[in-house]
Amino acid sequence: MKDALFAAGLGMLLATAAPAQDRATIERLNEAFSAAFRQGDMAAVAGMYTEADLLPHGADMVRGRSAIQAFWTKTAEAIADAKLTTIDVKPLGPEAAREIGTFLLKTRSAPPQEIAGKYVVVWRKVGGEWKLATDIWNMNR
Amino acid sequence: MKDALFAAGLGMLLATAAPAQDRATIERLNEAFSAAFRQGDMAAVAGMYTEADLLPHGADMVRGRSAIQAFWTKTAEAIADAKLTTIDVKPLGPEAAREIGTFLLKTRSAPPQEIAGKYVVVWRKVGGEWKLATDIWNMNR
Repeated sequence: MKDALFAAGLGMLLATAAPAQDRATIERLNEAFSAAFRQGDMAAVAGMYTEADLLPHGADMVRGRSAIQAFWTKTAEAIADAKLTTIDVKPLGPEAAREIGTFLLKTRSAPPQEIAGKYVVVWRKVGGEWKLATDIWNMNR
Repeated sequence: MKDALFAAGLGMLLATAAPAQDRATIERLNEAFSAAFRQGDMAAVAGMYTEADLLPHGADMVRGRSAIQAFWTKTAEAIADAKLTTIDVKPLGPEAAREIGTFLLKTRSAPPQEIAGKYVVVWRKVGGEWKLATDIWNMNR
């Protein structure tokens, strides 16, 4: 009985801990995303998506990893840096999560401009790894 | 044994049918959303959200149902109609779904303008009813 209670307690603890851990994982992945983007490694950026849908502001929807890589390659001609800040991560079942975040883009123009916006990413766990599955953003102004 | 196989088969059928049914439900709810918006019934619009996050293009994030009602009331001063078209609904566990769609806004300006865009909604089943939980959109051009 004590063991069962302990197991139940541990289960509850893990259930509570999991979202925090997922958030930490997603924050780490966002840092990796920004780093790959800064370095111009768009294959690494695209590799962070599963077969996904990208809904960029000011352009049509982009579907699938190779189209996403082409999109980010093109976008990097105008954008030097993208700083992502996670605001909220909500688990949606065991294999999906919804992230809300904000971003600050720095353009390659002279002088560089900063553009602030916000995004929603639906993450899915694919083969044990969190991947971006739906990615949409817009600007604040 | 035959009963068990039948039950298993029915289970699989229901598992397959559920997303299609959810999609139909979400499409019906989108029609109700547009109808309420057109009629200026922003309490009905806000009532379709759970305690939700709205990420409007060109404005800051809006959190919670009463703030969402205020946002749509203000927005309706400039927008006469919003036609929503569901492109894809993906179930995320038993109580959540991700919808991708497009919209066509008609402004109240003279002459009226049409603005095309796309959106992502994370729907959550709350007390057996699908509600908008996260709602973000942007423009195509």
